[in-house]
Amino acid sequence: MPVNPENVIANLKELQALSANQDGAQRLAWSPVWMQARAWFAARLEGLGFEHHLDAAGNRWVTLEGKSKRALVIGSHLDSVPNGGWLDGCLGVLAGLEILRALAEEYQGEPPFTVRLVDWADEEGARFGRSLFGSSAFAGTATIAEDRALVDRDGNILAETLAHCGVEIDRIGEAIVERAHMAAYLELHIEQGPVLEAMALPLGAVLGTKGVERHAITFFGQESHSGSTPMHARKDALAPAAKLALEIRNIARKHQDAVCTIGSVKTYPGIVTAVAGRCELTLDQRDLDPAVLAQMLLEARQASRQFAAEEGCTVEWSKIWSIEPIPFDAELIELCRESILEVAGGTHTMPSGPLHDAAEVARLGVPAVMMFVQSLGGISHNKIEDTRIEHLAMAVRAFDRLAAKTLIWMKTHQNGG
Amino acid sequence: MPVNPENVIANLKELQALSANQDGAQRLAWSPVWMQARAWFAARLEGLGFEHHLDAAGNRWVTLEGKSKRALVIGSHLDSVPNGGWLDGCLGVLAGLEILRALAEEYQGEPPFTVRLVDWADEEGARFGRSLFGSSAFAGTATIAEDRALVDRDGNILAETLAHCGVEIDRIGEAIVERAHMAAYLELHIEQGPVLEAMALPLGAVLGTKGVERHAITFFGQESHSGSTPMHARKDALAPAAKLALEIRNIARKHQDAVCTIGSVKTYPGIVTAVAGRCELTLDQRDLDPAVLAQMLLEARQASRQFAAEEGCTVEWSKIWSIEPIPFDAELIELCRESILEVAGGTHTMPSGPLHDAAEVARLGVPAVMMFVQSLGGISHNKIEDTRIEHLAMAVRAFDRLAAKTLIWMKTHQNGG
Repeated sequence: MPVNPENVIANLKELQALSANQDGAQRLAWSPVWMQARAWFAARLEGLGFEHHLDAAGNRWVTLEGKSKRALVIGSHLDSVPNGGWLDGCLGVLAGLEILRALAEEYQGEPPFTVRLVDWADEEGARFGRSLFGSSAFAGTATIAEDRALVDRDGNILAETLAHCGVEIDRIGEAIVERAHMAAYLELHIEQGPVLEAMALPLGAVLGTKGVERHAITFFGQESHSGSTPMHARKDALAPAAKLALEIRNIARKHQDAVCTIGSVKTYPGIVTAVAGRCELTLDQRDLDPAVLAQMLLEARQASRQFAAEEGCTVEWSKIWSIEPIPFDAELIELCRESILEVAGGTHTMPSGPLHDAAEVARLGVPAVMMFVQSLGGISHNKIEDTRIEHLAMAVRAFDRLAAKTLIWMKTHQNGG
Repeated sequence: MPVNPENVIANLKELQALSANQDGAQRLAWSPVWMQARAWFAARLEGLGFEHHLDAAGNRWVTLEGKSKRALVIGSHLDSVPNGGWLDGCLGVLAGLEILRALAEEYQGEPPFTVRLVDWADEEGARFGRSLFGSSAFAGTATIAEDRALVDRDGNILAETLAHCGVEIDRIGEAIVERAHMAAYLELHIEQGPVLEAMALPLGAVLGTKGVERHAITFFGQESHSGSTPMHARKDALAPAAKLALEIRNIARKHQDAVCTIGSVKTYPGIVTAVAGRCELTLDQRDLDPAVLAQMLLEARQASRQFAAEEGCTVEWSKIWSIEPIPFDAELIELCRESILEVAGGTHTMPSGPLHDAAEVARLGVPAVMMFVQSLGGISHNKIEDTRIEHLAMAVRAFDRLAAKTLIWMKTHQNGG
């Protein structure tokens, strides 16, 4: 039987029944529910004849051996945020499983190239704040020295929690052995944004993951009494923050697809009777073009200094985190577009704002691409996260075509793997 | 010996040594340090021959009986905020004590009118959030039914804490008996703002306490992913909040002495990776003119609705608290001006932004006025709160003159008391 979207949807629903409660999916990485979801997935593999194992970082690799060791890898993640949706991550894993099943059948157990499926461990980082855990260990970019002592909300230490799941933190770097013979990487994911829905398109080809500049900005003014301090005598730390919150929108709007967000604002002392002496905020800027990202950061810095000076305040910046833009492979993007056009009749190419495990793979130089399927209302990380069933079916069929096209492409690209 | 400012300053320093640590004054109402400060004050009264007692709300009344029962009352408070200054409140009490002492001497124990000093209990409300506790009980405006169950940071219940200090919460209304024969009320306080310092004036006569409108405002937008939500598709709850934070300044600046403050801003979920779905802020508006106060509130409401609509958001208002402007007595204000001019050569009349116990007294229809002395840097509620020693001395001398002028004024105003 060729690839059947109904199998994927049935599996998604079974997984949801197993791992969600009334508040949504609870497949928080390294939790009992996640372990149960992974055991359920392992049981799904029984009888299909695929070798499978966990690597040193807790990623599960499922292998359909081909005539060549050069491998096409399909990946995504079973873990979810707390109170998450029924598609984020697991759609890609279960679509991948169906494609492996269909390929094994089509090639009677031995396709021309090896095809592997990876369920990355702890993509979300929802528990310890370290997203892309498994894929970054695989890519060698994990900073375990810093992450070792991370603690979750309940006081559990990362290293101990991993040990309970059979992962030794000092050995996660050994996951790099799985890179061997990897020739291409494909990932199917929900969009988690409103772009495809607004364009009335079910599917899109992803150009890469946007680079991110993430900074903490603090304005310092003069705390004073809200009743006794005349307006002209104030150094209100909220004022430059408010100006910046509006200005970053102008900075972003100069560029197609760029985004700037101030997600957190806090005033200190933060009481009704005091002019704020300090205002802390977070800035998140993203774009696929490194030059645009650098320009936006520069403009935000300049604006913050100008607004601070206008208001008699000072400003300090502190970098939280950044990552460079990671473009996907141009040829695989084209194969992805073709696959979508054949199934859906129309497509869009777009950067991904959220990060994905595919970014860690692409950073290694492995040709990679992602396919997005429309998210209703652009909502994810929420129990109301949803995608139309017919769009999910189209996603599975288009992603299967992409896998097939990529296997053909691998014949003509002998360098990788 | 006539009134001697050095006695006041020596007492202020002794009280500071007794009740402050390296972080500032710790005379938090109903605390052991406050009780100790009050006991120190009671000891100061020994040998002076004044009757004194605590009323049902914990206010201490010190009485110099005069030929007439009609009473001039001088008041302020010994309690401080945590980490407070050495002057806020206690300056007025200790200046009042010196004036009573000097009057008793001047009139050989029997002035023409009775003169009383009151140390109001818990003016600051720093512990249970209920400021003007003692004076509002005296004025009959305390809402004990609502306040009974107030809890401090450490979980102590107001009613139980008061009981430990000998105050029965159900009986605090009995403090109204102290109103008998009250003909005028005077209060000396530090300005707690930068106005007098900016004008290079040591002293000012206070026109009244500004009315206050205090509201919680919440903007509701749509929480969304900071990476995947295009700028044009956002309903960022921070955007109308930022516009309002800037607009309330324009609203206030239309009026002399009016102030508008957004002291607290919080975004939800308040994380770097999410566009704010909700933004909560507090608005505090003050003016001495009820019409100006009402106009400012109306304009802020209209602006909030306009900005919400512009940003695809909604807005809700919830009143926290309000009080009407309370003007002081025009004739006493004039006496206060004269007293200041005689001592300092120049003066200014100004509204008080902060509330004071004098407002509760004036609300009752008792002629009242306050005198302000310059605050260095406009700073109070902080250990660095300070006033020049020569300004404190002028304050005591001018306030003494005001008391003397008020006693003369009482002769020609037989209605009160």
